Amino acid sequence: MIKVLIWNEFAHEKTDDKVKVIYPDGIHKAIADFLGCDDISVKTATLDDENCGITKEILDDTDVLLWWGHMRHRDVPDEIAMMVRDAVLEGMGMIFLHSAHHSKPFKFLMGTSCNLSWREDGDMERVWVTKPSHPIVQGIGRYFELEHEETYAEPFDIPEPDQTILMGWYEGGEVFRSGCVYIRGNGKIFYFQPGHESFPTYYNKDVQTVIKNAVYWAKPNYRAPLECPNIKKIGTE
Amino acid sequence: MIKVLIWNEFAHEKTDDKVKVIYPDGIHKAIADFLGCDDISVKTATLDDENCGITKEILDDTDVLLWWGHMRHRDVPDEIAMMVRDAVLEGMGMIFLHSAHHSKPFKFLMGTSCNLSWREDGDMERVWVTKPSHPIVQGIGRYFELEHEETYAEPFDIPEPDQTILMGWYEGGEVFRSGCVYIRGNGKIFYFQPGHESFPTYYNKDVQTVIKNAVYWAKPNYRAPLECPNIKKIGTE
Amino acid sequence: MIKVLIWNEFAHEKTDDKVKVIYPDGIHKAIADFLGCDDISVKTATLDDENCGITKEILDDTDVLLWWGHMRHRDVPDEIAMMVRDAVLEGMGMIFLHSAHHSKPFKFLMGTSCNLSWREDGDMERVWVTKPSHPIVQGIGRYFELEHEETYAEPFDIPEPDQTILMGWYEGGEVFRSGCVYIRGNGKIFYFQPGHESFPTYYNKDVQTVIKNAVYWAKPNYRAPLECPNIKKIGTE
Amino acid sequence: MIKVLIWNEFAHEKTDDKVKVIYPDGIHKAIADFLGCDDISVKTATLDDENCGITKEILDDTDVLLWWGHMRHRDVPDEIAMMVRDAVLEGMGMIFLHSAHHSKPFKFLMGTSCNLSWREDGDMERVWVTKPSHPIVQGIGRYFELEHEETYAEPFDIPEPDQTILMGWYEGGEVFRSGCVYIRGNGKIFYFQPGHESFPTYYNKDVQTVIKNAVYWAKPNYRAPLECPNIKKIGTE
Repeated sequence: MIKVLIWNEFAHEKTDDKVKVIYPDGIHKAIADFLGCDDISVKTATLDDENCGITKEILDDTDVLLWWGHMRHRDVPDEIAMMVRDAVLEGMGMIFLHSAHHSKPFKFLMGTSCNLSWREDGDMERVWVTKPSHPIVQGIGRYFELEHEETYAEPFDIPEPDQTILMGWYEGGEVFRSGCVYIRGNGKIFYFQPGHESFPTYYNKDVQTVIKNAVYWAKPNYRAPLECPNIKKIGTE
Repeated sequence: MIKVLIWNEFAHEKTDDKVKVIYPDGIHKAIADFLGCDDISVKTATLDDENCGITKEILDDTDVLLWWGHMRHRDVPDEIAMMVRDAVLEGMGMIFLHSAHHSKPFKFLMGTSCNLSWREDGDMERVWVTKPSHPIVQGIGRYFELEHEETYAEPFDIPEPDQTILMGWYEGGEVFRSGCVYIRGNGKIFYFQPGHESFPTYYNKDVQTVIKNAVYWAKPNYRAPLECPNIKKIGTE
Repeated sequence: MIKVLIWNEFAHEKTDDKVKVIYPDGIHKAIADFLGCDDISVKTATLDDENCGITKEILDDTDVLLWWGHMRHRDVPDEIAMMVRDAVLEGMGMIFLHSAHHSKPFKFLMGTSCNLSWREDGDMERVWVTKPSHPIVQGIGRYFELEHEETYAEPFDIPEPDQTILMGWYEGGEVFRSGCVYIRGNGKIFYFQPGHESFPTYYNKDVQTVIKNAVYWAKPNYRAPLECPNIKKIGTE
Repeated sequence: MIKVLIWNEFAHEKTDDKVKVIYPDGIHKAIADFLGCDDISVKTATLDDENCGITKEILDDTDVLLWWGHMRHRDVPDEIAMMVRDAVLEGMGMIFLHSAHHSKPFKFLMGTSCNLSWREDGDMERVWVTKPSHPIVQGIGRYFELEHEETYAEPFDIPEPDQTILMGWYEGGEVFRSGCVYIRGNGKIFYFQPGHESFPTYYNKDVQTVIKNAVYWAKPNYRAPLECPNIKKIGTE
């Protein structure tokens, strides 16, 4: 059983009528609905929960954390974002969705600005598989299409990914590295670009397949506390 | 003075009237015309030259080798392609242009199939800068456009690049990693996708800027023969 | 069931009395003895077998290929080495042992000289785990020791590994990247430095653990023939 | 002229007699003494300076920043460390020395714990060149030796380096990735392990050569403010 925690800022869905119609119970619930299965148990947490819904104990009991945030990134305290970063370094898997490119945990893990160019014209996006053998894209064809998405454009200021497994093409003329995988410390990280709050992206079957595959992929096989030990000379221990 | 050798298969330009009109003296001459300057001395070689125009002495006297080939990749003997590979490993810079993705020297250096998907519909291509700070893209804006290019599409079976500095967007809906840099041995390698023989791509100012920048970037700062020495125990030399 | 093929040059063991005593039935048999289990079926092949014991059909029926060679690398025809390379690119896992750093399949997959410095003084080697979370080093402590090994020293002319998971320390003063993993095409590749023919390295429990772990790790999850398709414009297929 | 700023915590040198003897004016002064030349202008800053000696203006006027810190990492405010990180992402070069592996700017740029194992037994260290063609190791032989250094041992929890150019061998049996280069954003980063305060490491000629080379290598060729622009659809600008 893989223990998944879906964290959602849960702000747009409360305040924006257009978003409320699409995700009446929040993006986290929409994701929970398709992820939960015999292999995967799902919990959710949101920004307005006590302590943002995150404690050391909760993270210790999480195999893979999903993160969606956008307009209230700054309301996540640095200490909580660093606690999340450290959990990843210890081995917890982590999936960053869409505008979480600017979330504190992602920026703390990447070490870069994670800036990009963007526009909201509701372009059609075609997401191409660039690494067909990667576990995360199994069950996807050469590409999949999203009728409308927010446009994210290069340059995307990230460390060169361990592997770029998906790339986005936008109707209006931009390109973007839409699926990037990293290992940091003991943890596996996946950034996945689709998922603007104004569009029903998380109901798309291919998007769901990618996210579900990513959960299996990111599941830790090893987890250990962070240590910087003062060792003894070999033979004198 | 940087010593550049431009190698061209020089086949289409002799046999295809459409190509002949665009590159009457061969693609190599069109490239030589914009590369040559006070800092850069240019020589050319073609497939039908004796020994393909390549000897150990010629490579030893070359700082940066450019390679264009397409329909006659197989006519380059393995030994010559391996001699080129070894010169790169010793330190020679190398720029692979367009369909040279399937040339023997590129495949020998990458170790992968270098396969991609392709179609010839004369799509407009917009080439995006994904790493604005890289020396090769200085003087280029956010992107440049080519009115017509052959469409190269992902997946492109290459080792994950050291850096992906350019990405192509095609009118018809595909994306491609159009500018990739690698270090192999002591040598620097740049793969640059634009340059189909049927279009006047090498007369484009931005394409010329990229190629010229790449020559400066790929110039060796160190060159040494390949050796696998039987060393002595330290203190007993 | 993982189908493993162990390929051994099987030359030293026939001609060198010292080696014969350690590996009377060949290095391949010593490895087969500890690898075979309920999950892993093992076959072997050697250089003097017909066609080097390798055909397209045999490779298609192999999940993970192990390779040991040294004094007769050149007797493996280029075509066979390229067939092995292509099988890896299609998805077959591959483990290169010790002096296989200079085998044709390894060099073809890496694209570099794979040169290193070496001496045979029977130094003690301590092999350090540099990435404790990697599946290949599970069950290994901080390091393991080999009473005697051939010394392999940096610089090792390989593409920067996807991950360096083991590093060797030699009594006489050298260091080496002893465990390196790569993805190439659809295949996973592991280079593992220990295993000189003159020492009983393959009877070491930690060495056996690493190799067995590597078999599980390299097992393909995806396999597809190499293709460079002429695609149709989207919407016109 | 390359504008270098050497930042030193400057704590051990004031409080520890043993260190005071070696670096009476501080480690920063010892480094400044060998770096300053016709091409390089050197300034210094220390932790106890106002604002840690660091402002946005100072960073904007710095080409390459060197950082030495150890016992008082935590006294550098997060805001200042993030200002340093952002300057690197904008293009400033940066060199982290020895125990700066645990400095806030390094950890913020790497995104990992940067933990390692360590012991202080004054072992001899032999530092091996693993990438002889890298600009930072020009003028260094196969290796150089430090009579005494603090022992830093793997595992070193860093993102896989863009290139590992130096590796350390310690008398007592450990190994370490002693020279690692990274590109992050527009900036170049070099981590260099030697430099314990208790030993005269910065008077060693090879150490000085490496650091001086690194300054030339890290010098920015491009610098731009961090932006995440809301772009217009192409054709509607």
